[in-house]
Amino acid sequence: MDSTALLTDHYELTMLQAALAGGTAGRRSVFELFPRRLPEGRRYGVVAGVGRALDALEAFRFDDDTLAVLDGVVDEPTLSWLADYRFSGDVWGYPEGELYFPSSPLLVVESTFAEAVLLETVLLSIYNHDSAVASAASRMTLAAGGRPCIEMGSRRTHEQAAVAAARAAYVAGFEASSNLAARRHGVPTTGTSAHSFTLLHDTEEQAFKAQVSSLGVGTTLLVDTYDVTEAVRVGIEVAGPSLGAVRLDSGDLGVLAVQVREQLDALGATRTRIIVTSDLDEFAIAALAAAPVDGYGVGTELVTGSGHPTSGFVYKLVAREGSDGELVSVAKKSVDKISVGGRKYALRRRSADGVAEAEVIGIGAAPVDDGDDRTLLVPLVRDGEIVGREPLTAARDRHAAARAELPLEAQSMAKGDPVLPTVFL
Amino acid sequence: MDSTALLTDHYELTMLQAALAGGTAGRRSVFELFPRRLPEGRRYGVVAGVGRALDALEAFRFDDDTLAVLDGVVDEPTLSWLADYRFSGDVWGYPEGELYFPSSPLLVVESTFAEAVLLETVLLSIYNHDSAVASAASRMTLAAGGRPCIEMGSRRTHEQAAVAAARAAYVAGFEASSNLAARRHGVPTTGTSAHSFTLLHDTEEQAFKAQVSSLGVGTTLLVDTYDVTEAVRVGIEVAGPSLGAVRLDSGDLGVLAVQVREQLDALGATRTRIIVTSDLDEFAIAALAAAPVDGYGVGTELVTGSGHPTSGFVYKLVAREGSDGELVSVAKKSVDKISVGGRKYALRRRSADGVAEAEVIGIGAAPVDDGDDRTLLVPLVRDGEIVGREPLTAARDRHAAARAELPLEAQSMAKGDPVLPTVFL
Repeated sequence: MDSTALLTDHYELTMLQAALAGGTAGRRSVFELFPRRLPEGRRYGVVAGVGRALDALEAFRFDDDTLAVLDGVVDEPTLSWLADYRFSGDVWGYPEGELYFPSSPLLVVESTFAEAVLLETVLLSIYNHDSAVASAASRMTLAAGGRPCIEMGSRRTHEQAAVAAARAAYVAGFEASSNLAARRHGVPTTGTSAHSFTLLHDTEEQAFKAQVSSLGVGTTLLVDTYDVTEAVRVGIEVAGPSLGAVRLDSGDLGVLAVQVREQLDALGATRTRIIVTSDLDEFAIAALAAAPVDGYGVGTELVTGSGHPTSGFVYKLVAREGSDGELVSVAKKSVDKISVGGRKYALRRRSADGVAEAEVIGIGAAPVDDGDDRTLLVPLVRDGEIVGREPLTAARDRHAAARAELPLEAQSMAKGDPVLPTVFL
Repeated sequence: MDSTALLTDHYELTMLQAALAGGTAGRRSVFELFPRRLPEGRRYGVVAGVGRALDALEAFRFDDDTLAVLDGVVDEPTLSWLADYRFSGDVWGYPEGELYFPSSPLLVVESTFAEAVLLETVLLSIYNHDSAVASAASRMTLAAGGRPCIEMGSRRTHEQAAVAAARAAYVAGFEASSNLAARRHGVPTTGTSAHSFTLLHDTEEQAFKAQVSSLGVGTTLLVDTYDVTEAVRVGIEVAGPSLGAVRLDSGDLGVLAVQVREQLDALGATRTRIIVTSDLDEFAIAALAAAPVDGYGVGTELVTGSGHPTSGFVYKLVAREGSDGELVSVAKKSVDKISVGGRKYALRRRSADGVAEAEVIGIGAAPVDDGDDRTLLVPLVRDGEIVGREPLTAARDRHAAARAELPLEAQSMAKGDPVLPTVFL
């Protein structure tokens, strides 16, 4: 992995320079990454990007090539210090796939000020993006019930954000992605053909024959290039009643799905599935619940967080060593942006029958587990060593389990308050 | 640059396989990248990402590492074909920084079907993202009048999207970015300190002294950690009346700016600038036009496209060789997604006094230049060789010039129709 050290804001380095010169750079410090609130109307959020953040932390090194770019940004003593930079502190965090609520302490970074302040931007970038996508994705898979959702939004977002989005969507229950680079993260990929393939051929029948001949009868034929009814007829004629699926990408999907299902059944293709795509979001998916649809392909609204393309997480200094060597809680008092100082601990309070009841945050001490609760902060980095890596499927499983614990109101697509209260102890 | 070949949707490779097997892969084809419309209410759009797209095209190669990821996606003959892939066709496009309107043919890609179909996702990703940011950024710099805008949104978006966003904002008139990696694109960077720096110190005065001592009196002091009036007083006491700037990051920025200006002037710091940050968008910037503000730092709303995080560009086959060897126009007929077939040409119609009047698109032939018009499609790739590279400052200058040509209505922040009509010839 290339160095991630430049994925940083200029002011982190100038602060470092001033702190090094002023003698405060080595003060033990605790930074916290947290949401002040959920996006408006959302019932819960989903933590994603943890694994990517750990990779980025490990690659956060100022090699010669990186330092050359910083010429003129900071002075020589600071550049020398950066050349030896290696995060040596501790990080605790909510594990990937876990849910979050207002003020959940998603990451707690403890080290010197100098080491921890540099990580602000890269950690926020990864968490803010990936969690925004996962939070939208979770609502979509919830709305889809048991029907599979496929991520298809790569073309609507930055080319690397697309890969991270595919990964985040998988954590939140999507079955697969169209993005080939997502395979590097272990995300299954899928896809068959676009309108251009049909248009390449002199007739739709020739296109279908070429596709079925090469990809097999299990393929998905795109049937809305010209006339849907005619395309379905031709598709079954070409592939036979064992055709895997047809895809609808325009028009009134609910009405069309009913028509196409009837037509397929009449043609004996009772097991041919109907996949719908075209500007779907969680509301459109929910609206199709009664339609004979077998899968949803979701693009734009997924990768743009369905109205909330960023999570609004912030990274704040909450405690630091004072001139007497003791750790003191700190917090700014800016209007509308009050932070709660102090090292945080967190657990998900659960009833005896396993239903989540509250997000409980302890300041300076861990809340007491009543016996049915779950501790939310796990070690991710210890003395600079990454200890929190896990397979992506573990995050996916965790998400499904954590979401299943929520009260039923969490399933509502309507705007509402967070489904759990946040309680500070 | 790493290979960009996996930043591609699965279906592009399965279409390729079927076209190779069916004998149509080599048909000469023309693909077009275009917007069906502008984002709702926007008067114009800004093309960005051209330089990045050319870099991505050059790095679009299936090396062994890349091919290994594709195991199981396509068959052996297709993998062999991919191993030799090298785009050998021609690309014309709107140059970077240029404006666009509904149906503007932003890219015209001419090659075999096989070569051109593979580029769909990576080209769309880059153009859709970068142009969304540039389009929002241009409205912000317009609203700011001559006051400088600084891009500070890295933390709110994917870590690599952040770098592209800084670059796109610079094209659209931003002065600088906080993102250090943007320096690789030649974007100036800037920044001084965060609240954490103040909180690191036992008193605000100690923090200001450390900052001024290390970064000089020309620095920008952040004055809203505790009490703004007190911070301004202490800041001038520490730095003297030559302090470079103060930054306000919370509260009612218009009211605060007036108070702080009066206080600074009374303290003799008449040239100390006031920089405001905190959830700014083009509307908030416009609302501060009468306030004594010297610069705007813009974050979230910039990198998320101010309500329109993606541009909605599509990449469609518009013409291809038929079985008789002739190039024929093609277009799908899907409901609500009609495309206009045929190879496009475009010019910006201008009046004799240089005011833009219309976006004129020719199908199959170039519109005639009336003498005051500007041809919009320039060669970017010729026979596979990149010919369209230019310094980023050229794109920035082009944007300023193209925007200055627009009718005055373009400056309105209110929702409205595209400021130029699109005329098909």
